[in-house]
Amino acid sequence: MSERLQAQLRKRGLDGFVATSFQGVYYTSGIRSATLRIFPRDAQVYAVVRTDDISHPVIVAGRGDMDTVAAGGERFRGVGYGKFFRSVDSEAKLTDVESRLVSWGIEKEPAASAGDALAEALSALDLGAASVGFEELTGTVQETVRRALPGVELVAAPEALKEARLVKTPIEQDMLGRAATITEDAIGAAVALARDGITEKEMLVAFQRHLVENGAEPVLAFIRFGRNGGVSQVSAGDTPLQRGDLIWFDVCAEFEGYKSDVARTFALGDPGARARDYYTALKIAEDVMIDKARPGRRASEIFDACVEAARDAGIPHYRRHHVGHAIGLDVYETPLLAPGQETVLEEDMVLNVEAPYYEVGFGALHVEDPVVVRSGGGQVLTKGSRDLGIL
Amino acid sequence: MSERLQAQLRKRGLDGFVATSFQGVYYTSGIRSATLRIFPRDAQVYAVVRTDDISHPVIVAGRGDMDTVAAGGERFRGVGYGKFFRSVDSEAKLTDVESRLVSWGIEKEPAASAGDALAEALSALDLGAASVGFEELTGTVQETVRRALPGVELVAAPEALKEARLVKTPIEQDMLGRAATITEDAIGAAVALARDGITEKEMLVAFQRHLVENGAEPVLAFIRFGRNGGVSQVSAGDTPLQRGDLIWFDVCAEFEGYKSDVARTFALGDPGARARDYYTALKIAEDVMIDKARPGRRASEIFDACVEAARDAGIPHYRRHHVGHAIGLDVYETPLLAPGQETVLEEDMVLNVEAPYYEVGFGALHVEDPVVVRSGGGQVLTKGSRDLGIL
Repeated sequence: MSERLQAQLRKRGLDGFVATSFQGVYYTSGIRSATLRIFPRDAQVYAVVRTDDISHPVIVAGRGDMDTVAAGGERFRGVGYGKFFRSVDSEAKLTDVESRLVSWGIEKEPAASAGDALAEALSALDLGAASVGFEELTGTVQETVRRALPGVELVAAPEALKEARLVKTPIEQDMLGRAATITEDAIGAAVALARDGITEKEMLVAFQRHLVENGAEPVLAFIRFGRNGGVSQVSAGDTPLQRGDLIWFDVCAEFEGYKSDVARTFALGDPGARARDYYTALKIAEDVMIDKARPGRRASEIFDACVEAARDAGIPHYRRHHVGHAIGLDVYETPLLAPGQETVLEEDMVLNVEAPYYEVGFGALHVEDPVVVRSGGGQVLTKGSRDLGIL
Repeated sequence: MSERLQAQLRKRGLDGFVATSFQGVYYTSGIRSATLRIFPRDAQVYAVVRTDDISHPVIVAGRGDMDTVAAGGERFRGVGYGKFFRSVDSEAKLTDVESRLVSWGIEKEPAASAGDALAEALSALDLGAASVGFEELTGTVQETVRRALPGVELVAAPEALKEARLVKTPIEQDMLGRAATITEDAIGAAVALARDGITEKEMLVAFQRHLVENGAEPVLAFIRFGRNGGVSQVSAGDTPLQRGDLIWFDVCAEFEGYKSDVARTFALGDPGARARDYYTALKIAEDVMIDKARPGRRASEIFDACVEAARDAGIPHYRRHHVGHAIGLDVYETPLLAPGQETVLEEDMVLNVEAPYYEVGFGALHVEDPVVVRSGGGQVLTKGSRDLGIL
């Protein structure tokens, strides 16, 4: 990941970068901050890097968070601020991780504030008189840094990170693929329970159980039976499954920080010709999107192609505001596959293509998968059938 | 919940209120917005209420979100903006939920923007020339509302919501209790696997599985064996459990939006006199905090009492920066139990009291529980033993 960020920083003439969001810090350094996860808006945890030595970040965080930095490995340094108390067993021979923690989290005097710690980190990286981009910093923190380091030029550059994240590295593609297949298998585990009388909530539990048993975590899941699907994104309830019902899954999960977003449609017995025919049209539309997920295409072209294909293939009144979005550390990343989105696709972007159809009084039909943009047509990251599953 | 908000709005002379965060919208209206959950910073979903009729909110959201509002029940009205397409089965006799969805999400022309929809909601509530508090609104949205309704007075009043949320209603206490006991039982399910060679990750899976099987969701969990506990808040890893090891749980979960945060310490066989003695001191300190969780005490007094008790009872060098925090829809709510926190406790506040001890090279000892402030001393919301569990 860091090589892509490095290229963006070079392009902008930035000597260093300060990532400040959960996703930004993880992308830049590999550190997943528990504090940023609990306080995404308020926590002050920064990953600070030099452009020309991007794999050796300095992590600025509360002293309590020096544990994660110490456990992260030798390539990290930590600069702590604030109060946090740990004792040290004077009789123990400390491990490398413990020694780093003692050094940054106990022995070293904490900085007076996050801003002072950031100034210290910039100095440690010899960026005290350099041009340094940042993702998001409060005015107070910027002021503190400028006072301590009058030579530093702080530049708001969230788009450096955003552009780096547009295209996924092989490791990221692997993570997204694992998130997708665990999710797909969890749908399989849930739908294996399909029988008269089972409830949406019971399937939801089976879905979530499969996720956690395979190292993933629930993010958001819609599992709805029959007409409930036409009302759409309401939490699973106590509706019992009946013969002929559609079963709609639109479910997200997280694996090692990377997200999945997969939709599948099943039916307990024959859902009728209209459901079958409409689904066939949506699947054709998805296949068209997968084929068009090639470098050089515009996001809006994928949208046009999807809507046209669904209409031609059997839903003449098909309308959508978008037919997917990029996916990565966030479920929704840019570009959106929508009218007016002129982003030109590049090899190795990962797009979540989707063709949903909601009809009030009838139900939901929906297919959605993550696809890597490839010159020969998109590579689907899920592995199983994308057909309407008649049970 | 809404009665407490009503009292705060009356105190401030506000005729209405606009909640804008996930927690705020849920607290004010009971609606849990999927959009706010995915885009907590950017989504524009508002719960708008009249102070004198607070149980009939108008929900402003994208047209796609009118599903949740329609499913919420008759007491809601929805005002949608933006694009989202649903069809209607012309042959189906619509249910009440479906009819509401069709009315707000399809038939009614969408507002031009979130701000326009908010102005429409305020008019519908006859608040077009009233004094209306809000949690957080962009300048653009405020400007749009003021242009449409020159008589409205918009007042930033996030503290109305914050103060309402300080004291928990019986329903909230019940939810927090259920979150706590599910979490406690999930710890029990995980620690039941304790044997030589089991890994932290295997216990984490058992913990999370119990959560999802009981309607809760994982939030954050630290499960660490032996010396790993001294490094503290690092994700569960592949460390195998060994005889004599401490087993440290510091785990959070969510049930119906309400959070838990529980810590327990176990050992596989005798962890030694120092671990036993120190834990006894921490447990005594927690008991002191529970006893002092009474109306009229200051948050800082709980802190002082905890540190003093732990020192007197056997950890003379005990130091902490805080010994707990209120808990509710967020894991960390105010007050923090820390020096300088002069909040006076009130009946029905829920405090998460905790006495952690981290020693690098040794491990973690920790006990933490949610406690309702009561005139006769705090009521602990967990049910099982808080002792050191020797397995």
